[in-house]
Amino acid sequence: MDKHPIITDLETRKTSKHYDPTRRVSSEDMEVLYESLRLTASSINSQPWKFIVIESEEAKGRLEKTFARKNFHNKKHITDGSHVILLAHNPRYAIEDFAKVVDTDIANGRGDNSSESRNRALSKFSFAESKMDATRNNAEWTKAQVYIALGNALHVLARLDVDGTPMEGIDPELISEEFEQELDGYVCEVALVVGYHHPEGGNAKLPKSRLPRKDVLKIL
Amino acid sequence: MDKHPIITDLETRKTSKHYDPTRRVSSEDMEVLYESLRLTASSINSQPWKFIVIESEEAKGRLEKTFARKNFHNKKHITDGSHVILLAHNPRYAIEDFAKVVDTDIANGRGDNSSESRNRALSKFSFAESKMDATRNNAEWTKAQVYIALGNALHVLARLDVDGTPMEGIDPELISEEFEQELDGYVCEVALVVGYHHPEGGNAKLPKSRLPRKDVLKIL
Repeated sequence: MDKHPIITDLETRKTSKHYDPTRRVSSEDMEVLYESLRLTASSINSQPWKFIVIESEEAKGRLEKTFARKNFHNKKHITDGSHVILLAHNPRYAIEDFAKVVDTDIANGRGDNSSESRNRALSKFSFAESKMDATRNNAEWTKAQVYIALGNALHVLARLDVDGTPMEGIDPELISEEFEQELDGYVCEVALVVGYHHPEGGNAKLPKSRLPRKDVLKIL
Repeated sequence: MDKHPIITDLETRKTSKHYDPTRRVSSEDMEVLYESLRLTASSINSQPWKFIVIESEEAKGRLEKTFARKNFHNKKHITDGSHVILLAHNPRYAIEDFAKVVDTDIANGRGDNSSESRNRALSKFSFAESKMDATRNNAEWTKAQVYIALGNALHVLARLDVDGTPMEGIDPELISEEFEQELDGYVCEVALVVGYHHPEGGNAKLPKSRLPRKDVLKIL
């Protein structure tokens, strides 16, 4: 029996260890990726994220500087990869942030703009509040939402036949300093390198390896 | 210009608020979902997850009991949805867990089984160690990986034309008690309801709504 195309896509995708510096991802493909990130689902539709795309040589130079203290081995991805996306979360997702979502919903025709209806929609914010610590920090919750976007993006790249490498080995503090203006208080703890693997490189020819089904999935 | 099929898939998917209790997802589609979850990418290929599928009436009855204290409104999804998947993470991902990954890799033909090569592979565990707190808990890191699987799963469901509802409104403590044996110390803080939306129900006919591009994405 032929494999389902979804499985073929996921089995074919690889986390590249070595990118081809001569190849760039087309703007058409990047456009699909950007829109896919924006369309990602999140808890209470909170969308507590910012995606900063590092495309220009100038921006790459700025990102390279953030590898001054650690994870030097990942620096080559910045130059060799086509694009790098910084996935950042809002560590203090507040009612004002959720109000933007609610007002966008109303503008898009979801619910009317009576104050009763708007207040009912806003009341869902109690869930974000329940995720706050004593300092009103709900970063663990918002960070998790960003990883939904990452999982979505990796699937999108597999469909586009573009390689992607999630990169947690970065320096959130130096990134916060260097991209202070763009991040505007959001925190970046994971990035996604996008490009094409080097024809000679790394693990491109190795078989995909995952734990056996019985170790990770049980049907009750 | 026609929309890219990836965008059409993502725009069409909806987080259902009301499932059709008469419809069940085919075992073929569920099989694709299970394999997709297993194939999900994770940091250092750690795969720090367990997916517990609630399919039988008996298992649904057990899951219903965990809504005894809170989130009563989500209980209906358990009975009306076709399947519920508990996505659980390992709060104390240890070297023994990573050794299973390394040995599976070797068995699958990635690297040889010399002790030098195995030790080199095992040394990547230092990254998991860097994510531990003073009690050797690295749950924030492993939980994030589970959300990559969730993002992947939502994209898979969109392609299969199956509805899915991520559900953080659950009771991790009661789930740990009820499914103690199956979870084996793993923690479930998010579940995924899978099924078909009710023809009369909820938000199926409302337009999709997301923040505008300028609020969430910036190209540098």
